[in-house]
Amino acid sequence: MSIEEKFARLGTDNAPGQEVRQAADGIEKLMRGDTLEGTPVDFSHGDVDAFLPTPGSLEVFSAGYAMGAKQAYTEYRGDIGIREMVAERLSAFTGAPVDARDGLIITPGTQGALFLAIATTTARGDKVAIMQPDYFANRKLVEFFEGEMIPVQLDYVNAGNNAGINLNELEQAFKDGAKVFLFSNPNNPAGVVYSADEIAAIAELASRYGATVIVDQLYSRLLYSGLAYTHLRASKIDPENVITIMGPSKTESLSGYRLGVAFGSKKLIDRMEKLQAIVSLRAGGYSQAVLRTWFAEEAGWMDERIRLHQAIRDDLLTVLRGCDGVFARTPQAGSYLFPRLPKLAVSYADFIKILRLQAGVSVTPGTEFSPHCADSIRFNFSQDHKAAVAAVERLVTLVDRYRA
Amino acid sequence: MSIEEKFARLGTDNAPGQEVRQAADGIEKLMRGDTLEGTPVDFSHGDVDAFLPTPGSLEVFSAGYAMGAKQAYTEYRGDIGIREMVAERLSAFTGAPVDARDGLIITPGTQGALFLAIATTTARGDKVAIMQPDYFANRKLVEFFEGEMIPVQLDYVNAGNNAGINLNELEQAFKDGAKVFLFSNPNNPAGVVYSADEIAAIAELASRYGATVIVDQLYSRLLYSGLAYTHLRASKIDPENVITIMGPSKTESLSGYRLGVAFGSKKLIDRMEKLQAIVSLRAGGYSQAVLRTWFAEEAGWMDERIRLHQAIRDDLLTVLRGCDGVFARTPQAGSYLFPRLPKLAVSYADFIKILRLQAGVSVTPGTEFSPHCADSIRFNFSQDHKAAVAAVERLVTLVDRYRA
Repeated sequence: MSIEEKFARLGTDNAPGQEVRQAADGIEKLMRGDTLEGTPVDFSHGDVDAFLPTPGSLEVFSAGYAMGAKQAYTEYRGDIGIREMVAERLSAFTGAPVDARDGLIITPGTQGALFLAIATTTARGDKVAIMQPDYFANRKLVEFFEGEMIPVQLDYVNAGNNAGINLNELEQAFKDGAKVFLFSNPNNPAGVVYSADEIAAIAELASRYGATVIVDQLYSRLLYSGLAYTHLRASKIDPENVITIMGPSKTESLSGYRLGVAFGSKKLIDRMEKLQAIVSLRAGGYSQAVLRTWFAEEAGWMDERIRLHQAIRDDLLTVLRGCDGVFARTPQAGSYLFPRLPKLAVSYADFIKILRLQAGVSVTPGTEFSPHCADSIRFNFSQDHKAAVAAVERLVTLVDRYRA
Repeated sequence: MSIEEKFARLGTDNAPGQEVRQAADGIEKLMRGDTLEGTPVDFSHGDVDAFLPTPGSLEVFSAGYAMGAKQAYTEYRGDIGIREMVAERLSAFTGAPVDARDGLIITPGTQGALFLAIATTTARGDKVAIMQPDYFANRKLVEFFEGEMIPVQLDYVNAGNNAGINLNELEQAFKDGAKVFLFSNPNNPAGVVYSADEIAAIAELASRYGATVIVDQLYSRLLYSGLAYTHLRASKIDPENVITIMGPSKTESLSGYRLGVAFGSKKLIDRMEKLQAIVSLRAGGYSQAVLRTWFAEEAGWMDERIRLHQAIRDDLLTVLRGCDGVFARTPQAGSYLFPRLPKLAVSYADFIKILRLQAGVSVTPGTEFSPHCADSIRFNFSQDHKAAVAAVERLVTLVDRYRA
């Protein structure tokens, strides 16, 4: 593949937060009616002004700075003291041991971890099973390394208490030679959590076919009341065949520090460090110190954060479900909502632009997550509660205005 | 190439700062005499406890944190306000315009910029000319993307006022199909600056053969007294064929924030942003704010920093040149010294381990920079002055002790 082709496939204009680089020529001709007033809401990512970073993060960063050279120049995989602290907490959280010395790497954000995980498992022509829908970068990562993507459908609409993975398709992907399976749990964008049965089946199939599983658990701490979460790494699977990815960028609102971790397979973590050495050297040294706050928040802080998100979720669902033809499954974890819209008189792509221009509401198009989700849009509802509800009310008004 | 082969070529055990992961089994058998007492010095990177970060960096970081979401979630290429500020200063420094909107990207360190620059210019089988010796990651980056490296020799030993690039070899590399030429100026490890004539010749050859030039100018601000520096981007060359890389990690001791910039070719910067979106999303948002201090240090601060480094440089040269058989060219910029050692009774690789164990002195082996430099070692002399001089005196003592 030529370098031009390779980069033509990496478009980011619709990626969350990049709308500022979009042109919207000619869209005015399609517009109907007046602008809707209200506080603009950018649902493409969480608002860290509405849900503030973990208390004390800046103080811990400053303490890291004060440590000087020791904190600025860590091993490429991160400071050993911090790795030891984090490994213990992640071991308790996930229910399976984490080796601080050889089985964990600190990365610049979970994006950094995902990049390294795909880069170290996927050579040109290797087959990789990925879910549809799933986090938009997954597809791009596989394409960048010239892997061959085998899509597996997630039927979250009709899945009952399951996330809705099509296990027959997953097995067929392994039969067809997929050596790697990459998925997010909870699913980004649909907000569904894989059931214990689904995780057991994934572990069993991956083991039978000798595949490596990379599971992105970025949102696994923000689990709504009464729900259970099953960690793949604590199930019946060879730990050397699993990489788990997490980070404090979302629930903890620490994205501005760019921190993530990958843990599990020592062989793969070792490769990931070799690659990180030429990609970015290390996660920012002083930022690494902020991981000291992770899983060590004051009592009740996380419960309250979950409660507040659940309240926003429920209010948005009420508004969305009041709109004829909208389908919205209840998110079980995380802060994403992924409703389907009814048929409209304009294309969904144009509707999303109109929504931004006429209602001050930015969302991410479903096509970023799956070619089969053009009628869906993703919201990150980690926002100011009132502003988010008002914004979704404006969305509903525009759905009615542009209804086919 | 299989993924195993690919990563076998990315060894980092001898990379600066990674010595902690090295085993040194059996080295005791080769040791002669006693341990030399003294403050341990890690010359593999600069000591930010000896040369502190730019005054005010933590305050500017904290102000970025206080800005909240706006600073945490920037465009992938970085905050536009900061890009505008930095573009103007880089334009003044390099003597050629920098386009803030389309011609500059903020990256996680200059390593991040180098990675993106090679990734966006080098497809499998593409030929890339690189200098020998040069920064050790250059070779690894070309190998990682399965490019074909064409080495060009830098004869810094016999170059007079030139850096010593073999221009015939560079032209031959272009004739043989190299589309990209990557080099550091000042050269890492040798500390030499390419003369105006050499830069003009590089520009002329690259233009004639239509090659893209990536120039790593990380140390270009730390220029010793009486010397001139020629910016390639301000010479006779199509600006779309040049990427310049800089950052505040070294001279300004801001490495703990992980900040770099690449600027020049709009086409390549655009690709680099697309790739950054899946590699690390962006340079840490709050860290980006620290660039506000860059090229805006208080009057006299940089002059004083240069003066102090020059004083260390001169003292180390005196000690090294007092040792029979050592050759050391005077660095013209930056804080690297790259002396050649005389013949020893142990291998140079073993000597470097012995040096660390017997004298508490860590250096980087010449083989990291060129296969032809096994007899050389690299020091980063941005260290406590007295400790550095004492450490190099211990080195000289050990050279005498292990002399062949």
